[in-house]
Amino acid sequence: MAKTLVFGHKNPDTDTIASAIAASYFLNQIGEETEAVAQGTPNAETQFALDYFKVAAPRVVTSADTDTVVLVDHNEAAQSVDNLADVTVTGIYDHHKFAFTNATPLYIIAKPWGSVATILYYEFKQAQMAIPADVAGLLASAIISDTLLLKSPTTTDFDVTALKALADIAGLEDYEAYGLALLKAGTDLSSRTDKELIDGDAKSFDMGGHQFRIGQVNTVAIEDVLSRQAGIEAAMTEEGYDNFLFVITDILNSNSKAIFLGETTAAVEAAFDGQLVDNVIDLPGVVSRKKQVVPPLEAQF
Amino acid sequence: MAKTLVFGHKNPDTDTIASAIAASYFLNQIGEETEAVAQGTPNAETQFALDYFKVAAPRVVTSADTDTVVLVDHNEAAQSVDNLADVTVTGIYDHHKFAFTNATPLYIIAKPWGSVATILYYEFKQAQMAIPADVAGLLASAIISDTLLLKSPTTTDFDVTALKALADIAGLEDYEAYGLALLKAGTDLSSRTDKELIDGDAKSFDMGGHQFRIGQVNTVAIEDVLSRQAGIEAAMTEEGYDNFLFVITDILNSNSKAIFLGETTAAVEAAFDGQLVDNVIDLPGVVSRKKQVVPPLEAQF
Repeated sequence: MAKTLVFGHKNPDTDTIASAIAASYFLNQIGEETEAVAQGTPNAETQFALDYFKVAAPRVVTSADTDTVVLVDHNEAAQSVDNLADVTVTGIYDHHKFAFTNATPLYIIAKPWGSVATILYYEFKQAQMAIPADVAGLLASAIISDTLLLKSPTTTDFDVTALKALADIAGLEDYEAYGLALLKAGTDLSSRTDKELIDGDAKSFDMGGHQFRIGQVNTVAIEDVLSRQAGIEAAMTEEGYDNFLFVITDILNSNSKAIFLGETTAAVEAAFDGQLVDNVIDLPGVVSRKKQVVPPLEAQF
Repeated sequence: MAKTLVFGHKNPDTDTIASAIAASYFLNQIGEETEAVAQGTPNAETQFALDYFKVAAPRVVTSADTDTVVLVDHNEAAQSVDNLADVTVTGIYDHHKFAFTNATPLYIIAKPWGSVATILYYEFKQAQMAIPADVAGLLASAIISDTLLLKSPTTTDFDVTALKALADIAGLEDYEAYGLALLKAGTDLSSRTDKELIDGDAKSFDMGGHQFRIGQVNTVAIEDVLSRQAGIEAAMTEEGYDNFLFVITDILNSNSKAIFLGETTAAVEAAFDGQLVDNVIDLPGVVSRKKQVVPPLEAQF
């Protein structure tokens, strides 16, 4: 009997990889047989965390070769494996909006917290199960990544408590210094092609029948990224989505600008109460796609 | 600011009423302001439990007059209040299949256990919160109701453990004797009209584009119910659903028969590997709509 696969969303980020590894460990401890996998190779930030805590990257899959799967950090089919409809979802750990259908009852633990890593920390705590130091280090990295070192408006008190406890377990004496190094590792964009830049963290959404692709990069200098606008727009056009919003986030000053190409210009301008100038719109104070980009866009449709 | 409403599905059963009351109590204890309500008056079984533990029936609503709601024992819009799309769902406690969409992240605790009451028992336990005796009595009644005194195939070890612990807290010295009295209170069908019979526990489902209504009654004599077949069929026809399956369950012998009126005869016969004779199909061993009726039907579409 094949193991249950545990995996996060396409274009894996640190929370998706860390949560798959931690959830698989947790489930194996309570008697399940699971394997953490990923729908892609780690990005530079995640690789920094894996190297730091000496954990191997999960095996890459594009479809599930088992009968049963557990989803972490996503629940929508568009962000999951290609053959999701052919396998049975037995569990979900997530912190996103929900759009999920299943023919049989299943386990779902979803909470509107900053990261799935935080949810898993509390699952370990409730089960009174010890978290190995390397797993704790990855979970701490995931909280830092998703909350931009507890600065994102998605941050909850639970994330703060979990990060401090996990940093202790992982032996991270100065989690802020580690966190800045981790975030900066994810912002070296010079070595990435335009296509890699827009694909790196992109997710697909259906908004009232309109197909939306929303990508995001973190940087310490928005203008550096915008200096590549022509190439980035060519790469966005080539992907062929009806609407593509590429959010460029300054993680030091907690601001964003976005490049938009698509058919729903008026809706995008209304969602963010701004104007597209040369396809670029200002998003002051915006750092969270989930909390500050997707909901106002959805409200337009 | 209006309270958050906590409620279960249309045609409330004992698990839906008990779970709304218990979840509202739990949430109020952790600082929320909630009110347990119901989408209908208690059925005879639920009223027996409310009377026994001296708890008032929740206020009846057909739409939510608040901005925020918590769903218990259901997640599908067809089983919820009429204006669900206009309010924000902030939490779900459920044990059914999932078909739910939400624009923002929310709390979801779903487990494939016998009753939502069992899930709530473990939520109280994890929070180390005492359960009042009357609430414990209602939760015990809900487990008895949904698992037919732990005999239904939906029963898990968690339900067994929870029922025994809740019976202790509630001061139920012989929960089996109480359970039989509770279940029998729900099987006195003679005073109910044909329409009340088919509507009592009915739920709507969308199965691959086919509209399905599935009702169920518990009895100690299936033939007594079938003696009213002509009147029951007339009531079913009058409701106007494309497909109506009315399941009659013998709670003592754990068997069912069903009356079916609709357009998908072949699918129903294939789902249950039997033949409709005079609109009646034998369902040997079937007691659970959720586990033994809905999944095989869905597999046909």
